Amino acid sequence: MDRIGFIGLGIMGGPMAKNLLKVGYSLTVLDINPQSVDELVKAGATSAEDPCDVARESDIVITMLPDSPDVEKVVLGEEGVIQGIKEGALFIDMSTIAPAMSIKIYEALQDKNVQSLDAPVSGGYMGAENGTLSIMIGGDRTAFDRAFPVFQTLGKNIVYMGETGAGQVTKTCNQIIVGVTLQAVSEALTLAKAAEVDLNKVRQALLGGFAQSKVLDHQGERIIEGNFEPGFKLKLHRKDLNISLETGKEQQVPLPCTAIVAQLMDAGMAQGFGESDHTTITKIFKSTDRA
Amino acid sequence: MDRIGFIGLGIMGGPMAKNLLKVGYSLTVLDINPQSVDELVKAGATSAEDPCDVARESDIVITMLPDSPDVEKVVLGEEGVIQGIKEGALFIDMSTIAPAMSIKIYEALQDKNVQSLDAPVSGGYMGAENGTLSIMIGGDRTAFDRAFPVFQTLGKNIVYMGETGAGQVTKTCNQIIVGVTLQAVSEALTLAKAAEVDLNKVRQALLGGFAQSKVLDHQGERIIEGNFEPGFKLKLHRKDLNISLETGKEQQVPLPCTAIVAQLMDAGMAQGFGESDHTTITKIFKSTDRA
Repeated sequence: MDRIGFIGLGIMGGPMAKNLLKVGYSLTVLDINPQSVDELVKAGATSAEDPCDVARESDIVITMLPDSPDVEKVVLGEEGVIQGIKEGALFIDMSTIAPAMSIKIYEALQDKNVQSLDAPVSGGYMGAENGTLSIMIGGDRTAFDRAFPVFQTLGKNIVYMGETGAGQVTKTCNQIIVGVTLQAVSEALTLAKAAEVDLNKVRQALLGGFAQSKVLDHQGERIIEGNFEPGFKLKLHRKDLNISLETGKEQQVPLPCTAIVAQLMDAGMAQGFGESDHTTITKIFKSTDRA
Repeated sequence: MDRIGFIGLGIMGGPMAKNLLKVGYSLTVLDINPQSVDELVKAGATSAEDPCDVARESDIVITMLPDSPDVEKVVLGEEGVIQGIKEGALFIDMSTIAPAMSIKIYEALQDKNVQSLDAPVSGGYMGAENGTLSIMIGGDRTAFDRAFPVFQTLGKNIVYMGETGAGQVTKTCNQIIVGVTLQAVSEALTLAKAAEVDLNKVRQALLGGFAQSKVLDHQGERIIEGNFEPGFKLKLHRKDLNISLETGKEQQVPLPCTAIVAQLMDAGMAQGFGESDHTTITKIFKSTDRA
């Protein structure tokens, strides 16, 4: 059985690492938060000094980190994964980062005869805990085949998207659609509320037709109930849209609604909603507070 | 059985009127296009001179017209419905118009002891032909109960939304969500295409998660196939968003993404796509034409 190194034990990474331990993988772990490391060590993992150290002990190295610069530093930086990883090993980044960074890392590791995959996920912490994440994978097919048992432990909807970066492109498309659809639902429900139409009836009626979406169903219910507990934090969705907008700029694709939604999320963060659920963008004009 | 007057025999109104004839209602019809009238007369309807004339012959008067000014003229204008309609009759407007106009008409007819309902539909011409429209109804509950057998002939998903105008508010919320979600899907698929990721795989992967929507499913497939046959004409969706924006202004609800999508639809119309399917907004930056 492959020895796995796991770097980044946050809300997502922690439960993912535990699921790998449960099925019998031996795990070397690293996080900037000592408490998160302790928890995994108690569950049977070994701790390491730095990313280089993790890589030295592992056949497969997985990262689950907040953003592109974090992954760049952990993989390509001083004492980075690239310093310790063995020829023939496999690197899997499961963070949501810029496709361009996935390609940069892929190329750097290829020079060391190390395969790599971009494998961002969706499904939130519930999906991480239950091992039911959706995983969108880019990279060489042989690397995908090799990683498949690991993905099967972590997720359910496992899709090979194509070459390096294709996983991240798919994830950023997901974040565009979820973010803009959320704003669509927010505008509609705010208007209906102002016009004093029963929001539950509106949601129910629209779920029966072409306006149907998971966002109207799930996030729509949260908006109506006024439940803004995360869920998916506004500041993280905002970070993800930054990746979308950067990628749009590189590819010369205008993304007007994505750009507007990013601005509205900035307005939400300026109002202190960054740690709340992304549905709080519905509150930035305060219209939903009108009785 | 109530005698029904039907004004507006277009793509939607024509088949709706035929469905009423089929179940045995006696029908008096009117349209500016003599061919449309002929077709209904051949099917068993009686033609009339003007809206006042239609109303004189009917217990229930239905209008299915393009926009608010059309309904205003036909109901409240010279030789309008209001001139001929009998005390105790029922007026049902099934057009998609501004909620404020529905309220204006409701009040004018109430002064004549005539009940009225706003009952816009969704489901397109296929829904009209098959009698499977979704109908969102606003007005007095007693009027709704009286009209119910008529609605059952025309549609399947029949929802009483509340007071006068609530049907139109719900419809405009529907058009906001469909329009903005369509733009979300368009931005995502254009980005994926530019990044050379397989669009069918992207659509399939995203349908399995939180980005799922009827629009991604149905209109997404049209965009990928390059099938821009209407469907739902861009110019009609643009008209509907005008109602959304007007209503937002009245209610002091900012609708930033709706406004952007309306502008993008204007760009599409300036490029000659008004008669094409609303999915043509995906073509305005020509990015999807890149191989």
